[in-house]
Amino acid sequence: MKFSAAVFLVLILSTVIVAFAGEPDSARAYKDVAGKIIDEALANGQAYSRLRELCLQIGPRLSGSPAAAAAVEWSRQEMVKAGLDNVHLQPVMVPHWVRGEVEEASVVNSRQVGTVPLTVCALGGSVATPALGVVGKVIEVKTFEEVRRLGAGAKGAILFYNRPFDKTERNTFNAYVGAVDQRGRGAIEAARVGAVAVLVRSMTSRLDDIPHTGVMHYEDGVPQIPAAAISTVGANFLSELLQAEAGVRVNLRLSSHTLRDAPSANVIGEITGTELPDEVVLLGGHLDSWDKGQGAHDDGAGCVQALEALSLLKTLGLKPKRTIRAVMFINEENGTRGGKAYAAEIAANGPRHIAAIESDRGGFMPTGISVDADPGGPAFKSVAKWSFLLESIQAHRFEKGYSGVDIAALGDHGTLVMGLVVESQRYFDYHHSDNDTIDKVNERELELGAATLAVMSYVLANEGVGVEGR
Amino acid sequence: MKFSAAVFLVLILSTVIVAFAGEPDSARAYKDVAGKIIDEALANGQAYSRLRELCLQIGPRLSGSPAAAAAVEWSRQEMVKAGLDNVHLQPVMVPHWVRGEVEEASVVNSRQVGTVPLTVCALGGSVATPALGVVGKVIEVKTFEEVRRLGAGAKGAILFYNRPFDKTERNTFNAYVGAVDQRGRGAIEAARVGAVAVLVRSMTSRLDDIPHTGVMHYEDGVPQIPAAAISTVGANFLSELLQAEAGVRVNLRLSSHTLRDAPSANVIGEITGTELPDEVVLLGGHLDSWDKGQGAHDDGAGCVQALEALSLLKTLGLKPKRTIRAVMFINEENGTRGGKAYAAEIAANGPRHIAAIESDRGGFMPTGISVDADPGGPAFKSVAKWSFLLESIQAHRFEKGYSGVDIAALGDHGTLVMGLVVESQRYFDYHHSDNDTIDKVNERELELGAATLAVMSYVLANEGVGVEGR
Repeated sequence: MKFSAAVFLVLILSTVIVAFAGEPDSARAYKDVAGKIIDEALANGQAYSRLRELCLQIGPRLSGSPAAAAAVEWSRQEMVKAGLDNVHLQPVMVPHWVRGEVEEASVVNSRQVGTVPLTVCALGGSVATPALGVVGKVIEVKTFEEVRRLGAGAKGAILFYNRPFDKTERNTFNAYVGAVDQRGRGAIEAARVGAVAVLVRSMTSRLDDIPHTGVMHYEDGVPQIPAAAISTVGANFLSELLQAEAGVRVNLRLSSHTLRDAPSANVIGEITGTELPDEVVLLGGHLDSWDKGQGAHDDGAGCVQALEALSLLKTLGLKPKRTIRAVMFINEENGTRGGKAYAAEIAANGPRHIAAIESDRGGFMPTGISVDADPGGPAFKSVAKWSFLLESIQAHRFEKGYSGVDIAALGDHGTLVMGLVVESQRYFDYHHSDNDTIDKVNERELELGAATLAVMSYVLANEGVGVEGR
Repeated sequence: MKFSAAVFLVLILSTVIVAFAGEPDSARAYKDVAGKIIDEALANGQAYSRLRELCLQIGPRLSGSPAAAAAVEWSRQEMVKAGLDNVHLQPVMVPHWVRGEVEEASVVNSRQVGTVPLTVCALGGSVATPALGVVGKVIEVKTFEEVRRLGAGAKGAILFYNRPFDKTERNTFNAYVGAVDQRGRGAIEAARVGAVAVLVRSMTSRLDDIPHTGVMHYEDGVPQIPAAAISTVGANFLSELLQAEAGVRVNLRLSSHTLRDAPSANVIGEITGTELPDEVVLLGGHLDSWDKGQGAHDDGAGCVQALEALSLLKTLGLKPKRTIRAVMFINEENGTRGGKAYAAEIAANGPRHIAAIESDRGGFMPTGISVDADPGGPAFKSVAKWSFLLESIQAHRFEKGYSGVDIAALGDHGTLVMGLVVESQRYFDYHHSDNDTIDKVNERELELGAATLAVMSYVLANEGVGVEGR
């Protein structure tokens, strides 16, 4: 075949040209360093044992909770123990939403099944129902367009958003993006047509009876109605019942409510650069989690990886020219207050951040780096040229893509922002649910993610990113 | 930098040349087909529900056990239900080893810790100890060279093989290969110097208290001594105790023994080729498992994937020119009788097998295909040229490598043999232990492996492998 003949010719040519070009000393030296970092992470890494401690001794840590305060102090102490420089807290006021004691829902007096409980949980930010709950006729919808067409027909109803994940999406984050508007804006759109509450199909393609929480929003001038996630098993059951029987009603009871903002903090530590200490490469994750499971993959993993990356460099005696800083951001889940406060502080007072990488896609096998820059441009290339350092662990796929919620704002101030990309298939089985626990994390995969951060931060701290910003 | 400049130049050149070459119709058509196969697997695949049934309703299925017989009949019925052609059993006599009721070990009367239980399990094939157990002084060794140096000093002792996995190996299979000689030949080498039993550190880098079984061997003319795996936690404890205290003794009790060979079978079904029905592309896994856990990843996954690949093609109405056959081999774990009988039958009576792919590395995210052929040769290239079909799921890494235990012998008769390669980090957490259960399998990863087999078998069945054998 012509096609494959051409490809092979090119492959052979590539090999020849690269072989002739040879590897200059710095490439060879960095490859050596990368090998040592990966060896050390796999042989003696501490990321997993730290994450186990965070998950089992502190547990879930929603912004404003006592556990979140414990996590901040635990992180500070871990940074001190790891011998980081300039360990400090950046105070941040955070939203303080609590789930309360009650969250339950039932189909009421169905002709076919009688009264049947449904597995639900309040969405983050939701107001409570009255103490006895809210009862309404259930109307199933899949789009906001359908909601608007309901018009006055939705008055007094409970809208049931049931558009599932598109399972054919190869990357599960695309499926998430394709469904999550229901959770984020569902209550607003429903309230506009007079609905009294919403149930939202959990954000996962997995079929089980575990509801997945996550942030939802209200809008000024639109009534605030209660919003709950329903498990995928519950959603399928309810949908089938609605097809079989007219006038199905549900009673929803939630006790969630929002308290006054609470004091909290971003946790910061670093390895001071030997030559350009006032230029920073940032590694980050977010310390807060939802109040379900243990926040293991989301995002305890990213926090311990950022710390581990610095620990690995210290253990190996590697001294970067620029400063490498680990930041555990607070309040990514329901406010991004930590990320916003951090970006504002850097914009106002520096130091200059040349690059930032966030790990917030779970502690799975790393596959590469997403760079928020034009793939044809010099910034992208200045990063992607180092991908060969990660080839031994197959984490060398560098693509244009999103960085992370906590660091995206840094990009607006000239920082080249990036994300650690990992195998995505398992993430939404666990995300924001009781399933997100330490036993779902594989130690080696977690460590290889940390090693990837260590390798990239070290080489970028030494070599820079070539151009200002993106 | 010169190095990266050269690389970028080559990348740009590659793009240009490939773009000019264009995609001929057949490449485009196969890409379409591959996309449909992957969509169907992700949206409607049955591999996971079949595997759940095999794991939960039949469970572990060691050769010769009633559960293995159930698994054979279940598989036959599943193939019939899936509408495969020529569904049949190939009778095979298999070894019949049983674990028995008793397997326990204790440190006896240690000065420091008294009598303490150790978590062990019999290695597959091991003889029993006397009913009251065997007691011996424990000697820790890491190599057979050390064993030989012990000489008469090992007489009456229990040798404790404690060479761990090399955690720095990027691919865990290499770590396994570097340690598994202790399990396979440990009893032989120990018996030669007069030891009365062996304990072998479990074949995993994970630290937990679950022992991992697996096959061990005896040799004619060498006394058969009992052999057990000890958990990694137990091995570390025992090793520390040995350093602190001289003359530590262990009592080991095993009731395992070998019965007469039992009748069993390989399970075979196919989609008959439309143009060359007497030429076969084989997809395989092995149906037997160890008698621990549920044999989910090892290798229920491979079996349901082979069947799923054919189901996907049938569902999509894809009719291959050559026959595609799914084979669930029996007795991979302790005898390879199924694989040997199959290869002997094909060598004697055909039909000709042009290619075979085994899935026996767990149902994890597929990363590519290992081809047991010279990477510079035409056989390798005739397969690797199709890797672009798997790029959308990042399973397009084609490398020279091992195929699979059950199909390797086919390679000697001119078949191009290959293996499905998957992400390796988690496999040995579960392998041959109570941890190998259905909850460790991710539905989407399992399906994507099946889709990879479907895509490759379909294109090879239509296009052939270019040359005879390797």
